[in-house]
Amino acid sequence: MSGSTFGNIWKITTWGESHGTGVGVVLDGCPAGLPLCEEDIQIYLDRRKPGQSKYSTPRKESDAVEIQSGIFEGRTTGTPISMAVYNRNQRSADYREIASYYRPGHADYTFDQKYGFRDYRGGGRSSARETIGRVAAGAVAAKLLGMLGIHFLTYVKSIGPVAIAPERFDACQISQNPLSMPDAVAAEKAQEYLEQCMKAQNSSGGIVECIITGVPAGIGEPVFCKLDSELARAVFSIGAVKGFEIGDGFAAAQADGLTNNDAFYYDTDGAIHKKTNHAGGILGGISDGSDIIFRAAFKPTPSISATQHTVNQDGENICVNVKGRHDPVIVPRAAVVVESMAALVLADLMLANMGARVDQVLERYQKHNS
Amino acid sequence: MSGSTFGNIWKITTWGESHGTGVGVVLDGCPAGLPLCEEDIQIYLDRRKPGQSKYSTPRKESDAVEIQSGIFEGRTTGTPISMAVYNRNQRSADYREIASYYRPGHADYTFDQKYGFRDYRGGGRSSARETIGRVAAGAVAAKLLGMLGIHFLTYVKSIGPVAIAPERFDACQISQNPLSMPDAVAAEKAQEYLEQCMKAQNSSGGIVECIITGVPAGIGEPVFCKLDSELARAVFSIGAVKGFEIGDGFAAAQADGLTNNDAFYYDTDGAIHKKTNHAGGILGGISDGSDIIFRAAFKPTPSISATQHTVNQDGENICVNVKGRHDPVIVPRAAVVVESMAALVLADLMLANMGARVDQVLERYQKHNS
Amino acid sequence: MSGSTFGNIWKITTWGESHGTGVGVVLDGCPAGLPLCEEDIQIYLDRRKPGQSKYSTPRKESDAVEIQSGIFEGRTTGTPISMAVYNRNQRSADYREIASYYRPGHADYTFDQKYGFRDYRGGGRSSARETIGRVAAGAVAAKLLGMLGIHFLTYVKSIGPVAIAPERFDACQISQNPLSMPDAVAAEKAQEYLEQCMKAQNSSGGIVECIITGVPAGIGEPVFCKLDSELARAVFSIGAVKGFEIGDGFAAAQADGLTNNDAFYYDTDGAIHKKTNHAGGILGGISDGSDIIFRAAFKPTPSISATQHTVNQDGENICVNVKGRHDPVIVPRAAVVVESMAALVLADLMLANMGARVDQVLERYQKHNS
Amino acid sequence: MSGSTFGNIWKITTWGESHGTGVGVVLDGCPAGLPLCEEDIQIYLDRRKPGQSKYSTPRKESDAVEIQSGIFEGRTTGTPISMAVYNRNQRSADYREIASYYRPGHADYTFDQKYGFRDYRGGGRSSARETIGRVAAGAVAAKLLGMLGIHFLTYVKSIGPVAIAPERFDACQISQNPLSMPDAVAAEKAQEYLEQCMKAQNSSGGIVECIITGVPAGIGEPVFCKLDSELARAVFSIGAVKGFEIGDGFAAAQADGLTNNDAFYYDTDGAIHKKTNHAGGILGGISDGSDIIFRAAFKPTPSISATQHTVNQDGENICVNVKGRHDPVIVPRAAVVVESMAALVLADLMLANMGARVDQVLERYQKHNS
Repeated sequence: MSGSTFGNIWKITTWGESHGTGVGVVLDGCPAGLPLCEEDIQIYLDRRKPGQSKYSTPRKESDAVEIQSGIFEGRTTGTPISMAVYNRNQRSADYREIASYYRPGHADYTFDQKYGFRDYRGGGRSSARETIGRVAAGAVAAKLLGMLGIHFLTYVKSIGPVAIAPERFDACQISQNPLSMPDAVAAEKAQEYLEQCMKAQNSSGGIVECIITGVPAGIGEPVFCKLDSELARAVFSIGAVKGFEIGDGFAAAQADGLTNNDAFYYDTDGAIHKKTNHAGGILGGISDGSDIIFRAAFKPTPSISATQHTVNQDGENICVNVKGRHDPVIVPRAAVVVESMAALVLADLMLANMGARVDQVLERYQKHNS
Repeated sequence: MSGSTFGNIWKITTWGESHGTGVGVVLDGCPAGLPLCEEDIQIYLDRRKPGQSKYSTPRKESDAVEIQSGIFEGRTTGTPISMAVYNRNQRSADYREIASYYRPGHADYTFDQKYGFRDYRGGGRSSARETIGRVAAGAVAAKLLGMLGIHFLTYVKSIGPVAIAPERFDACQISQNPLSMPDAVAAEKAQEYLEQCMKAQNSSGGIVECIITGVPAGIGEPVFCKLDSELARAVFSIGAVKGFEIGDGFAAAQADGLTNNDAFYYDTDGAIHKKTNHAGGILGGISDGSDIIFRAAFKPTPSISATQHTVNQDGENICVNVKGRHDPVIVPRAAVVVESMAALVLADLMLANMGARVDQVLERYQKHNS
Repeated sequence: MSGSTFGNIWKITTWGESHGTGVGVVLDGCPAGLPLCEEDIQIYLDRRKPGQSKYSTPRKESDAVEIQSGIFEGRTTGTPISMAVYNRNQRSADYREIASYYRPGHADYTFDQKYGFRDYRGGGRSSARETIGRVAAGAVAAKLLGMLGIHFLTYVKSIGPVAIAPERFDACQISQNPLSMPDAVAAEKAQEYLEQCMKAQNSSGGIVECIITGVPAGIGEPVFCKLDSELARAVFSIGAVKGFEIGDGFAAAQADGLTNNDAFYYDTDGAIHKKTNHAGGILGGISDGSDIIFRAAFKPTPSISATQHTVNQDGENICVNVKGRHDPVIVPRAAVVVESMAALVLADLMLANMGARVDQVLERYQKHNS
Repeated sequence: MSGSTFGNIWKITTWGESHGTGVGVVLDGCPAGLPLCEEDIQIYLDRRKPGQSKYSTPRKESDAVEIQSGIFEGRTTGTPISMAVYNRNQRSADYREIASYYRPGHADYTFDQKYGFRDYRGGGRSSARETIGRVAAGAVAAKLLGMLGIHFLTYVKSIGPVAIAPERFDACQISQNPLSMPDAVAAEKAQEYLEQCMKAQNSSGGIVECIITGVPAGIGEPVFCKLDSELARAVFSIGAVKGFEIGDGFAAAQADGLTNNDAFYYDTDGAIHKKTNHAGGILGGISDGSDIIFRAAFKPTPSISATQHTVNQDGENICVNVKGRHDPVIVPRAAVVVESMAALVLADLMLANMGARVDQVLERYQKHNS
């Protein structure tokens, strides 16, 4: 089937493999008139670029984006925006060995089972390079959302056993340490933990948290296109994600109703607010005007150089040490991917919500006609 | 927009509100020739029926399903299967009061924000009765999957702070206690906990776990229609779900790669197996032939009779005690809804996978032509 | 697969067979706040009801619609509107004979080839009764469009060799003759022609024409969701349609560019108009503000009592006289089906167009936020 | 919205404008294992390439395709196939003048109305260059279909008033004349007619006919995804198409049932055949095993150098002579676009049909499991 398209109105289609010509995305459904240039995209791509610290793969990839369509005189035209990043620093030779066996924790085995063979170079389509297209399109979504007053704060909440402490939370710290943690102390400890992992030729998992501010109440469609279910799907489509929760998440399963319900009240401004936000900004699948807060759990990078047991294609049980240039932890680079997927979901559902009421439709077209 | 349709090839569309004429579903895309009768559906619906123990709402709803199309001489015809459950035990009067205020933890406020008004009777479209259509269609999916050797084991893993103990796990217990827990001791403790909740006019959250056996390797589509991302979306579309995880889930975020990777090996039968199943049966979004294991966290039932703060439509901050016949905990009845959503996802992705390889397409049509 | 769902934002799913419990439709995506009652739907259904003249089947079907969800206090709520017509006047016995052979011109053979068997009663899912769901949903679309100043004029342009004459066109005549022709003279001649057909136990084809007024410029999406291509698909999905054309249609293939191009001009009101409308109101797949004009060619009713050659399931070449109560011509009843499909397309594309420009999105949400 | 994606399982997304970086397509859903190289695509693209005769635009465009993903060691991998043709021979200066006025018969006016502005260079997204992506993807579909024994014969049936004569039909002639007509006499007359058009700085319309052989019975989904309605939509999405008909098409509207019904019979081979094929190979929206025959009517090329009336953006009624290098007739180059769209529809519906019956699903997965 065709699993490379995402979204209904704001729709993206990604293509490309780790070691092919390149990777890219076609974004269809962006409204006309949005100011957009390659720099808007590049800023986002640079946040996932490897080689920025010793805690990410030392591969040097410039990942320079080219916009190939959909822009005229600096603005989107309403037609598809094709964006591509061509591969430049591939060393396919690194990967030839892995053609013969199945790397534990990777999609090698399942692709072979599904398709009968696989592009084994760098993981092919299941490579993390596939996310470049998502981030490029997410950058466009984020630009539109920014004009609507919607902003994202995305960071690493934990790496292995090391989590940030709420009392030390400092958003300014996110860009001050190589792990994108909003807590200088935790970032320090996490680096120590990662050093141990790297010495042991091992890797670590982690948690990314995202806070979205400025989302108006009313976004999300009942039943199957709830805002939270679309976010869950979007984030879970990122390789290595094993858990997703919103608001209090799994902790809510241990709570009681009286504690977990968020009380409404009229503030002095006459507007309705909530005293707490256990719900994470979504009630019945629809945004309630509070901050939207969610978390994604990433498993440890499966590519490790430590000795592992697996099978080869000659029917033998073997031991392997996966070579290559791997990230000891993926979450610092994955944060922008999570944010991008959330931006894509929001852009899509905000467009879907444009005609939720008859009076909005009447107003739009009566103005149009007069 | 239209959020009431789910699936691509095996596609369902649900309709109905808590206190309207009824609720129902149209299932389109079921292959022709599946033996099906109302009893197949009713068995599933009875698992979510209220009034079966003192831990669920005392409302008596027979929830008798009627199949209205798509069956001829006891078999599916390949055309849409319309199924409906008509409402019989509505007491709309119970709900008239709640027209005037927003219940904390409910979708009252967000529906009003989105649509300008709402059907306030019993929560309208956001009522848990909406899930009847999902379960009816899920029962059909489960019947097809059963013929393919795929089976579900779904149960309550925890209620509030009370969780089952792995060493006491006993699948036979699930049907032996009113909380569907596979651990008699935990079930006993959970009942005590719920008694306290009920005395305090309060409610509890909980976790549902689902194990799917018999899924062949190769199911799931790369990138955006991964098996895990479709399951996440499906389960998160159930009201009250706040978290979803697969395999080790959030625990994987604290693990290291060497521990978390599942080693492959050839067994004496010559087939490839995994020594462990931290991945929960999915690698790169595609089933690996192991059991699929996932969990969903449900928040406490928001409808509680204890006093809560909220706002009314006259602009006042008020205290309320939500009347009605509520479930002190939803997870025992929600288990079959979780299972149904998983069955719908699997049926859809297994049909999507039919033509994954050219040789499968050739074989199908060459046979057809000869 | 699932071919019973139509539309992206304004989405319908139909179900039901000729001789099952009934037929129905779920309409999802209708904006909230549209005043709607069963009478709005019934008026449309009555236009396709059989038994209204001697030129349609003498079956008496009341075709009374029931709205089962999505309405609260007389207005749409934004949630799915389920509508059903239950079958009351089935004589399945009439059809038992046709289980044994394939009626020429019908889908009996192709359904068997596809699904391995078929619901042979009255054509099952391929019966014209399936269109009831389309008309019910089309009535809702037409109500919304009417509020936007968009109106339909749909009529029979020709029956067999008898066509209306442009110089005698009189819209008032449409409701004055049993054939819905806007030309009294042609209607008279067509009735004579049909009398001959009926005597010969034969049937006739015909052409339906539809004019849509009041569509603003800008409706339709480039490339694959052009307004004309969506209309073509919609109309061609009606059983018995064999041709579709817009504006000058097939005649344009014989024309030259200078004649066929419609010249633009500024009228005294300062607005841009076209001197002619060869294009039928659509340029580049997008409405240009002129009337939209299209035609659908219907083949003769395949059910005829005259002797025909065919095969039976025992491997024999046989002669048959198809019994039952058939329409000698389908176009008078089909006109409202054509109109309904056009209304569904327009409603969907007008909602899709709500956020075509960034400034429209900004205006919508800035108002929302302030 | 996003109108640049077509298909459900075999899905394409096109991008690009006439005078941007290039045009391209992402094909997602092609089964794994199909042998494919750029030459397979180029053969198709060359059939629509301009500059091949004096009856097409003298623009020289090499239109060399690059495959950018989805192929490994000469075979498709099951992942998206990105194909691009970069623009090389653009003369944007030619088009600067048309920024100021609306060309009659073009989408200039409607794009402005929809989006507020337009990429006026060469028609931007509404340029015929957009069809390059369709043809590239259609070539892949045709390759797969060819392996299944399905073949296309597509040709020009008429140009202006000059039509082929059935008694002179000779498929070998199609490649022997610059107009792709299967009738040498008609081709000669059509060339004379076009010479007159060109002298008058005028253009001509025409009709393309397509015959598809080898399609097994059973392809097409009931109700809204009928094979004929999908073909209608697909072909009508090609710019300049104003009419579509299948089998006898509009002529069927003038026929009687006894003549129009195709009688079934058992042939000496024991298989069921039809004595005639008025239906064009489709009954009830599903292929019946006969040849599929359809026609598309194209309007005359709207770009002509003869003097026309129109409006400019300063509010003036003006006369224009549209400059540039235009095709006096589009149908010879459009034939391969029609064929490509038909191939895309067939590939999609044949994949959709893979699991139409439960026994096919069982067979597929029981084999898989054993």
